[in-house]
Amino acid sequence: MRWLKYTGDGGTSWGIVEGDRVIATEGSPFGEWHRTGQKHGLADVMIGVPLVPRTFYCAGRNYVKHLAEAAGADGVAPEIPKRPEIGYRAQNALIAHDEDVVIPRDATEQVHYEGELVVVIGKKAKHLTEAEAMSCIFGYTIGNDVSERTWQRNDRTFWRAKNADTFKPMGPWIETAVDLEAMETHVRLNGVVRTSFRTNEMLFGIARFLSAMSQYLTLWPGDVMWMGTDGSSPNLKAGDVVEIEITGIGTLRNRFVAET
Amino acid sequence: MRWLKYTGDGGTSWGIVEGDRVIATEGSPFGEWHRTGQKHGLADVMIGVPLVPRTFYCAGRNYVKHLAEAAGADGVAPEIPKRPEIGYRAQNALIAHDEDVVIPRDATEQVHYEGELVVVIGKKAKHLTEAEAMSCIFGYTIGNDVSERTWQRNDRTFWRAKNADTFKPMGPWIETAVDLEAMETHVRLNGVVRTSFRTNEMLFGIARFLSAMSQYLTLWPGDVMWMGTDGSSPNLKAGDVVEIEITGIGTLRNRFVAET
Repeated sequence: MRWLKYTGDGGTSWGIVEGDRVIATEGSPFGEWHRTGQKHGLADVMIGVPLVPRTFYCAGRNYVKHLAEAAGADGVAPEIPKRPEIGYRAQNALIAHDEDVVIPRDATEQVHYEGELVVVIGKKAKHLTEAEAMSCIFGYTIGNDVSERTWQRNDRTFWRAKNADTFKPMGPWIETAVDLEAMETHVRLNGVVRTSFRTNEMLFGIARFLSAMSQYLTLWPGDVMWMGTDGSSPNLKAGDVVEIEITGIGTLRNRFVAET
Repeated sequence: MRWLKYTGDGGTSWGIVEGDRVIATEGSPFGEWHRTGQKHGLADVMIGVPLVPRTFYCAGRNYVKHLAEAAGADGVAPEIPKRPEIGYRAQNALIAHDEDVVIPRDATEQVHYEGELVVVIGKKAKHLTEAEAMSCIFGYTIGNDVSERTWQRNDRTFWRAKNADTFKPMGPWIETAVDLEAMETHVRLNGVVRTSFRTNEMLFGIARFLSAMSQYLTLWPGDVMWMGTDGSSPNLKAGDVVEIEITGIGTLRNRFVAET
């Protein structure tokens, strides 16, 4: 099932995507909900950010090739994590499918995409074993972890390198039924595929991450966990359009524009 | 004015603290609200976390003495930041005044308090100058940035060192009218003052931080910014009670217990 947050005539609400239609619902997929009988064309609604997470988690370094390429660019040996460790991103930076990523005035030319699988938590959970970890997942969406690499290297934290306004496109919707092993991530720049990888070929898998996190922290419905990326990105400039497609979910598309 | 989030007979709501009374209100101080005419004894209500912030910001290193003492403990020279840089804490870790801080089973003996002034944002704002930065503030509360120093030193991020469940007590209420220059922070361990400092004697002041942040990110009503701490803490153990008093706000008190 595909859950979409959209704005139509009647305000903002959750809907279910079926083909090119949106089935209007009342309530929330995280609680009570029902179909209203209303339908909209998918092309006729404005797609919103699926949700603003209570806590916004991420897996900083979770694909070996991305680590090797990032280290190579800096002229150092890649540092491969020995255990899953959790990072954070900031809610202010979230934008929806088809909203513009605004490149700050003083950013350098090193603005990059990172195509990521996003896990959306559906149940309150703590102390999960790896075997039971996947049971707390509501569904999956797509994230673009936009990064300004000069700031990422030189600042003490990632506050503006990764959390400047509009640097976290997420969407277009949440898909509840996926085949992780069949998933591939393809990132297109202006229509041309520039990065491709097997989505689930992670250093630490989803179950291992969720289990490790939940030994110390409570997962809440609506929390999200961005799973990291593989490969590298060319420098992006105003006018570029980045599309991130993940098998079984869909495509997240955003244009990059310059701050005025 | 003192805004309290509390649970009484009629569920959870905002109230105004006047002396030892809570004046019940309907609505939210961040939007429309009015007094209901009902009153409760402050001692009769259960105090809640004032709010779960949309984005949870913090100033990692903002008092010179704390930096010097932390560096001294590690046997290195203190690293004094040259400009304000923003850190993040996690919503899962928040607890209210009088709730217990649970020390995880595998934590070392190096569990410390950090008494902090918390700025609560009241208005959506971006690109603030230092002169106008204070105008976006709704009020102030108190935070205890509980930290497990062994994890803080050895993990790649602060995910469990600072964001384990219950590691972020915040409260007891939000005070909207304060005199920053008169403020002192006093931290008592089991009734004895162990740390005292002038609250506003920061490396980078509140206006400088908010202005710097807002060049890249939008501040939202209900966001919080924890301003850092001065001095150092003894090791805390189960049974200890930590009280953080800040002049003009009040006292945040929490007991430490062992995870069972």
